[in-house]
Amino acid sequence: MVILGIDPGYGILGFGVIWTDGIKHKAIAYGAIETPKFKRFPERLKYIGDQISGLINHYKPDAVAVEELFFQNNQKTAIMVAEARGVVLYVAESKNIPLFEYTPMQIKQAITGYGRAEKHQIQMMVKVMLGLSTIPKPDDAADALAVAITHAQTNPNLGDFGVH
Amino acid sequence: MVILGIDPGYGILGFGVIWTDGIKHKAIAYGAIETPKFKRFPERLKYIGDQISGLINHYKPDAVAVEELFFQNNQKTAIMVAEARGVVLYVAESKNIPLFEYTPMQIKQAITGYGRAEKHQIQMMVKVMLGLSTIPKPDDAADALAVAITHAQTNPNLGDFGVH
Repeated sequence: MVILGIDPGYGILGFGVIWTDGIKHKAIAYGAIETPKFKRFPERLKYIGDQISGLINHYKPDAVAVEELFFQNNQKTAIMVAEARGVVLYVAESKNIPLFEYTPMQIKQAITGYGRAEKHQIQMMVKVMLGLSTIPKPDDAADALAVAITHAQTNPNLGDFGVH
Repeated sequence: MVILGIDPGYGILGFGVIWTDGIKHKAIAYGAIETPKFKRFPERLKYIGDQISGLINHYKPDAVAVEELFFQNNQKTAIMVAEARGVVLYVAESKNIPLFEYTPMQIKQAITGYGRAEKHQIQMMVKVMLGLSTIPKPDDAADALAVAITHAQTNPNLGDFGVH
Protein backbone atom coordinates (compact mmCIF):
# COMPACT_ATOMS: atom_id res chain seq x y z
CA MET A 1 0.00 0.00 0.00
CA VAL A 2 0.97 3.64 -0.46
CA ILE A 3 0.86 6.00 2.53
CA LEU A 4 1.09 9.77 2.52
CA GLY A 5 2.46 11.12 5.80
CA ILE A 6 1.98 14.76 6.76
CA ASP A 7 3.80 16.92 9.30
CA PRO A 8 1.36 19.87 9.52
CA GLY A 9 2.46 23.49 9.28
CA TYR A 10 1.57 26.65 7.40
CA GLY A 11 5.00 28.20 6.67
CA ILE A 12 6.42 24.77 5.92
CA LEU A 13 4.50 21.50 5.80
CA GLY A 14 6.39 18.22 5.45
CA PHE A 15 5.14 15.37 3.31
CA GLY A 16 6.40 11.85 2.74
CA VAL A 17 5.04 9.16 0.45
CA ILE A 18 6.06 5.57 1.15
CA TRP A 19 5.25 2.18 -0.25
CA THR A 20 4.97 -0.62 2.26
CA ASP A 21 4.01 -4.27 2.49
CA GLY A 22 3.80 -3.87 6.28
CA ILE A 23 7.33 -5.11 6.85
CA LYS A 24 9.49 -3.46 4.22
CA HIS A 25 9.06 0.23 3.42
CA LYS A 26 10.32 2.29 0.51
CA ALA A 27 10.35 6.07 0.11
CA ILE A 28 8.55 7.14 -3.06
CA ALA A 29 8.73 10.89 -2.58
CA TYR A 30 9.22 13.41 0.19
CA GLY A 31 9.68 17.11 0.61
CA ALA A 32 8.07 20.23 1.94
CA ILE A 33 5.32 22.58 0.87
CA GLU A 34 6.43 26.09 1.68
CA THR A 35 4.23 29.16 1.63
CA PRO A 36 5.67 32.66 1.41
CA LYS A 37 5.25 35.09 4.31
CA PHE A 38 4.26 37.91 2.01
CA LYS A 39 1.04 36.14 0.97
CA ARG A 40 -2.24 36.65 2.82
CA PHE A 41 -2.96 33.77 5.17
CA PRO A 42 -6.02 32.48 3.22
CA GLU A 43 -3.86 32.33 0.08
CA ARG A 44 -1.29 30.29 1.98
CA LEU A 45 -4.04 27.89 3.09
CA LYS A 46 -5.35 27.62 -0.45
CA TYR A 47 -1.87 26.85 -1.74
CA ILE A 48 -1.42 24.13 0.89
CA GLY A 49 -4.80 22.57 0.08
CA ASP A 50 -4.13 22.62 -3.64
CA GLN A 51 -0.68 21.07 -3.21
CA ILE A 52 -2.05 18.31 -0.97
CA SER A 53 -4.76 17.71 -3.54
CA GLY A 54 -2.06 17.41 -6.22
CA LEU A 55 0.01 14.97 -4.13
CA ILE A 56 -3.05 12.77 -3.58
CA ASN A 57 -3.99 12.83 -7.26
CA HIS A 58 -0.44 12.00 -8.28
CA TYR A 59 0.54 9.31 -5.75
CA LYS A 60 -2.95 7.92 -5.09
CA PRO A 61 -2.24 6.97 -1.45
CA ASP A 62 -4.35 4.26 0.20
CA ALA A 63 -4.14 6.19 3.47
CA VAL A 64 -3.12 9.60 4.77
CA ALA A 65 -1.46 9.77 8.20
CA VAL A 66 -1.22 13.14 9.93
CA GLU A 67 0.66 14.10 13.05
CA GLU A 68 -1.53 15.27 15.93
CA LEU A 69 -1.00 18.77 17.24
CA PHE A 70 -0.02 19.75 20.72
CA PHE A 71 -0.04 23.28 21.93
CA GLN A 72 3.07 25.28 21.51
CA ASN A 73 4.04 28.32 23.50
CA ASN A 74 3.01 30.67 20.72
CA GLN A 75 -0.78 30.60 20.62
CA LYS A 76 -1.04 32.51 17.35
CA THR A 77 1.26 29.99 15.67
CA ALA A 78 -0.62 27.03 17.15
CA ILE A 79 -3.94 28.34 15.78
CA MET A 80 -2.45 28.86 12.33
CA VAL A 81 -0.89 25.38 12.26
CA ALA A 82 -4.27 23.94 13.28
CA GLU A 83 -6.00 25.90 10.50
CA ALA A 84 -3.56 24.42 7.97
CA ARG A 85 -4.09 20.94 9.42
CA GLY A 86 -7.84 21.39 9.05
CA VAL A 87 -7.34 22.10 5.34
CA VAL A 88 -5.29 18.91 4.94
CA LEU A 89 -7.99 16.83 6.64
CA TYR A 90 -10.72 18.48 4.56
CA VAL A 91 -8.94 17.85 1.26
CA ALA A 92 -8.09 14.21 2.06
CA GLU A 93 -11.60 13.50 3.37
CA SER A 94 -13.12 15.11 0.27
CA LYS A 95 -11.16 12.60 -1.81
CA ASN A 96 -12.36 9.74 0.36
CA ILE A 97 -8.87 8.74 1.46
CA PRO A 98 -8.85 7.00 4.85
CA LEU A 99 -7.29 9.36 7.39
CA PHE A 100 -5.31 8.54 10.50
CA GLU A 101 -3.60 10.62 13.15
CA TYR A 102 -0.72 9.81 15.47
CA THR A 103 0.66 11.68 18.45
CA PRO A 104 4.38 12.56 18.55
CA MET A 105 4.77 9.94 21.30
CA GLN A 106 3.09 7.23 19.21
CA ILE A 107 5.41 8.10 16.33
CA LYS A 108 8.54 7.96 18.50
CA GLN A 109 7.38 4.66 19.97
CA ALA A 110 6.69 3.16 16.53
CA ILE A 111 9.97 4.30 14.99
CA THR A 112 12.45 3.76 17.84
CA GLY A 113 10.54 1.66 20.36
CA TYR A 114 10.91 4.52 22.84
CA GLY A 115 8.23 7.22 23.28
CA ARG A 116 10.70 9.89 24.37
CA ALA A 117 13.32 9.42 21.68
CA GLU A 118 15.30 12.43 20.46
CA LYS A 119 14.61 14.04 17.11
CA HIS A 120 17.94 12.88 15.71
CA GLN A 121 17.28 9.23 16.65
CA ILE A 122 13.97 9.37 14.78
CA GLN A 123 15.65 10.80 11.71
CA MET A 124 18.40 8.15 11.79
CA MET A 125 15.81 5.39 12.05
CA VAL A 126 13.75 6.85 9.19
CA LYS A 127 16.90 6.81 7.03
CA VAL A 128 17.68 3.19 7.97
CA MET A 129 14.10 1.93 7.67
CA LEU A 130 13.71 3.40 4.20
CA GLY A 131 17.20 2.37 3.06
CA LEU A 132 18.16 5.96 2.25
CA SER A 133 21.79 7.02 2.00
CA THR A 134 21.25 10.24 3.94
CA ILE A 135 18.76 11.66 6.43
CA PRO A 136 15.84 13.15 4.48
CA LYS A 137 15.79 16.94 4.45
CA PRO A 138 14.21 19.21 5.48
CA ASP A 139 13.36 17.98 9.00
CA ASP A 140 9.67 18.40 8.17
CA ALA A 141 9.98 15.82 5.38
CA ALA A 142 11.74 13.37 7.73
CA ASP A 143 8.97 13.89 10.28
CA ALA A 144 6.32 13.27 7.62
CA LEU A 145 8.04 10.03 6.55
CA ALA A 146 8.10 9.01 10.24
CA VAL A 147 4.31 9.46 10.44
CA ALA A 148 3.87 7.40 7.28
CA ILE A 149 6.08 4.59 8.64
CA THR A 150 4.17 4.72 11.94
CA HIS A 151 0.97 4.03 10.05
CA ALA A 152 2.68 1.27 8.07
CA GLN A 153 3.69 -0.69 11.14
CA THR A 154 1.00 0.15 13.64
CA ASN A 155 -2.42 -1.33 14.12
CA PRO A 156 -4.45 1.31 12.27
CA ASN A 157 -7.01 1.32 15.08
CA LEU A 158 -4.45 3.26 17.07
CA GLY A 159 -4.52 6.13 14.58
CA ASP A 160 -8.24 6.14 14.01
CA PHE A 161 -9.79 9.56 14.49
CA GLY A 162 -12.69 8.03 16.32
CA VAL A 163 -15.28 10.47 17.57
CA HIS A 164 -14.63 13.35 19.89
CA MET B 1 -23.31 44.26 -1.17
CA VAL B 2 -23.91 40.85 0.38
CA ILE B 3 -21.76 39.72 3.31
CA LEU B 4 -21.46 36.25 4.78
CA GLY B 5 -20.43 36.34 8.45
CA ILE B 6 -19.03 33.27 10.16
CA ASP B 7 -18.71 32.39 13.84
CA PRO B 8 -16.27 29.45 13.60
CA GLY B 9 -16.84 26.15 15.35
CA TYR B 10 -16.86 22.43 14.64
CA GLY B 11 -19.82 21.17 16.68
CA ILE B 12 -21.83 24.23 15.76
CA LEU B 13 -20.79 26.98 13.37
CA GLY B 14 -22.89 30.13 13.06
CA PHE B 15 -23.52 31.84 9.76
CA GLY B 16 -25.30 35.06 8.85
CA VAL B 17 -25.92 36.55 5.42
CA ILE B 18 -26.76 40.24 5.25
CA TRP B 19 -27.36 42.78 2.54
CA THR B 20 -26.02 46.26 3.19
CA ASP B 21 -25.59 49.61 1.48
CA GLY B 22 -23.09 50.54 4.20
CA ILE B 23 -25.72 52.35 6.28
CA LYS B 24 -28.79 50.13 6.27
CA HIS B 25 -28.46 46.38 6.76
CA LYS B 26 -30.93 43.57 6.15
CA ALA B 27 -30.73 39.93 7.23
CA ILE B 28 -31.05 37.60 4.25
CA ALA B 29 -30.43 34.32 6.05
CA TYR B 30 -28.88 33.04 9.23
CA GLY B 31 -28.52 29.82 11.12
CA ALA B 32 -26.05 27.22 12.26
CA ILE B 33 -24.21 24.33 10.69
CA GLU B 34 -24.19 21.50 13.20
CA THR B 35 -22.08 18.37 12.95
CA PRO B 36 -22.94 15.26 14.91
CA LYS B 37 -20.57 14.00 17.61
CA PHE B 38 -20.81 10.44 16.36
CA LYS B 39 -19.08 11.31 13.08
CA ARG B 40 -15.31 11.09 12.66
CA PHE B 41 -13.68 14.51 12.90
CA PRO B 42 -12.58 14.63 9.21
CA GLU B 43 -16.18 13.90 8.18
CA ARG B 44 -17.38 16.79 10.33
CA LEU B 45 -14.82 19.06 8.64
CA LYS B 46 -15.90 17.89 5.21
CA TYR B 47 -19.54 18.56 6.07
CA ILE B 48 -18.66 22.08 7.26
CA GLY B 49 -16.64 22.82 4.11
CA ASP B 50 -19.38 21.52 1.84
CA GLN B 51 -22.07 23.53 3.63
CA ILE B 52 -19.98 26.72 3.46
CA SER B 53 -19.43 26.02 -0.21
CA GLY B 54 -23.19 25.65 -0.66
CA LEU B 55 -23.92 28.91 1.19
CA ILE B 56 -21.43 30.78 -1.00
CA ASN B 57 -22.86 29.28 -4.19
CA HIS B 58 -26.39 30.13 -3.11
CA TYR B 59 -26.00 33.64 -1.67
CA LYS B 60 -23.01 34.74 -3.76
CA PRO B 61 -21.54 37.01 -1.07
CA ASP B 62 -19.23 39.85 -2.09
CA ALA B 63 -17.20 39.26 1.08
CA VAL B 64 -16.81 36.70 3.84
CA ALA B 65 -16.06 37.97 7.36
CA VAL B 66 -14.82 35.50 9.95
CA GLU B 67 -14.33 35.95 13.66
CA GLU B 68 -10.74 35.65 14.84
CA LEU B 69 -9.94 32.96 17.37
CA PHE B 70 -8.52 33.40 20.78
CA PHE B 71 -7.35 30.56 22.91
CA GLN B 72 -9.81 28.95 25.19
CA ASN B 73 -9.03 26.98 28.29
CA ASN B 74 -9.58 23.70 26.51
CA GLN B 75 -6.62 23.25 24.17
CA LYS B 76 -8.12 20.28 22.33
CA THR B 77 -11.27 22.29 21.59
CA ALA B 78 -9.28 25.33 20.47
CA ILE B 79 -7.29 23.23 18.00
CA MET B 80 -10.46 21.68 16.59
CA VAL B 81 -12.18 25.06 16.21
CA ALA B 82 -9.06 26.34 14.41
CA GLU B 83 -9.11 23.32 12.09
CA ALA B 84 -12.73 24.08 11.19
CA ARG B 85 -11.88 27.75 10.68
CA GLY B 86 -9.05 26.74 8.33
CA VAL B 87 -11.56 24.82 6.23
CA VAL B 88 -13.84 27.88 6.01
CA LEU B 89 -10.94 30.07 4.88
CA TYR B 90 -9.80 27.46 2.36
CA VAL B 91 -13.25 27.08 0.81
CA ALA B 92 -13.90 30.85 0.58
CA GLU B 93 -10.42 31.55 -0.80
CA SER B 94 -10.85 28.76 -3.35
CA LYS B 95 -13.95 30.57 -4.61
CA ASN B 96 -12.07 33.87 -4.77
CA ILE B 97 -14.33 35.61 -2.27
CA PRO B 98 -12.54 38.44 -0.44
CA LEU B 99 -11.97 37.34 3.16
CA PHE B 100 -11.79 39.45 6.28
CA GLU B 101 -11.32 38.69 9.96
CA TYR B 102 -12.33 40.63 13.04
CA THR B 103 -11.42 40.13 16.68
CA PRO B 104 -14.20 39.81 19.27
CA MET B 105 -13.20 43.25 20.56
CA GLN B 106 -13.46 44.82 17.09
CA ILE B 107 -16.90 43.26 16.69
CA LYS B 108 -18.11 44.55 20.06
CA GLN B 109 -16.73 47.98 19.25
CA ALA B 110 -18.42 48.07 15.84
CA ILE B 111 -21.81 46.87 17.09
CA THR B 112 -22.13 48.68 20.42
CA GLY B 113 -19.36 51.29 20.34
CA TYR B 114 -17.83 49.59 23.37
CA GLY B 115 -15.11 46.90 23.05
CA ARG B 116 -16.10 45.12 26.25
CA ALA B 117 -19.84 44.92 25.71
CA GLU B 118 -21.77 41.96 27.10
CA LYS B 119 -23.01 39.17 24.83
CA HIS B 120 -26.65 40.14 25.40
CA GLN B 121 -26.01 43.78 24.39
CA ILE B 122 -24.47 42.57 21.13
CA GLN B 123 -27.45 40.37 20.43
CA MET B 124 -29.91 43.17 21.18
CA MET B 125 -28.04 45.52 18.84
CA VAL B 126 -27.95 42.88 16.08
CA LYS B 127 -31.72 42.54 16.38
CA VAL B 128 -32.22 46.33 16.24
CA MET B 129 -29.72 46.95 13.44
CA LEU B 130 -31.30 44.30 11.23
CA GLY B 131 -34.86 45.28 12.12
CA LEU B 132 -35.67 41.78 13.37
CA SER B 133 -38.57 41.14 15.70
CA THR B 134 -36.59 38.78 17.95
CA ILE B 135 -32.97 38.06 18.80
CA PRO B 136 -31.62 35.63 16.18
CA LYS B 137 -31.14 32.10 17.47
CA PRO B 138 -28.96 30.18 18.09
CA ASP B 139 -26.35 32.49 19.67
CA ASP B 140 -23.87 31.34 17.04
CA ALA B 141 -26.09 32.77 14.31
CA ALA B 142 -26.40 36.09 16.17
CA ASP B 143 -22.61 36.19 16.53
CA ALA B 144 -22.17 35.48 12.83
CA LEU B 145 -24.58 38.30 11.93
CA ALA B 146 -22.55 40.58 14.23
CA VAL B 147 -19.36 39.77 12.28
CA ALA B 148 -21.14 40.49 9.00
CA ILE B 149 -22.46 43.86 10.31
CA THR B 150 -18.97 44.67 11.58
CA HIS B 151 -17.62 44.24 8.10
CA ALA B 152 -20.50 46.30 6.67
CA GLN B 153 -19.72 49.34 8.78
CA THR B 154 -15.99 49.11 9.29
CA ASN B 155 -13.18 50.24 7.06
CA PRO B 156 -12.35 46.89 5.46
CA ASN B 157 -8.65 47.57 5.95
CA LEU B 158 -9.24 46.80 9.62
CA GLY B 159 -10.28 43.25 8.81
CA ASP B 160 -7.67 42.59 6.19
CA PHE B 161 -5.74 39.39 6.87
CA GLY B 162 -2.52 41.11 5.88
CA VAL B 163 0.57 38.97 6.13
CA HIS B 164 1.81 37.22 9.24
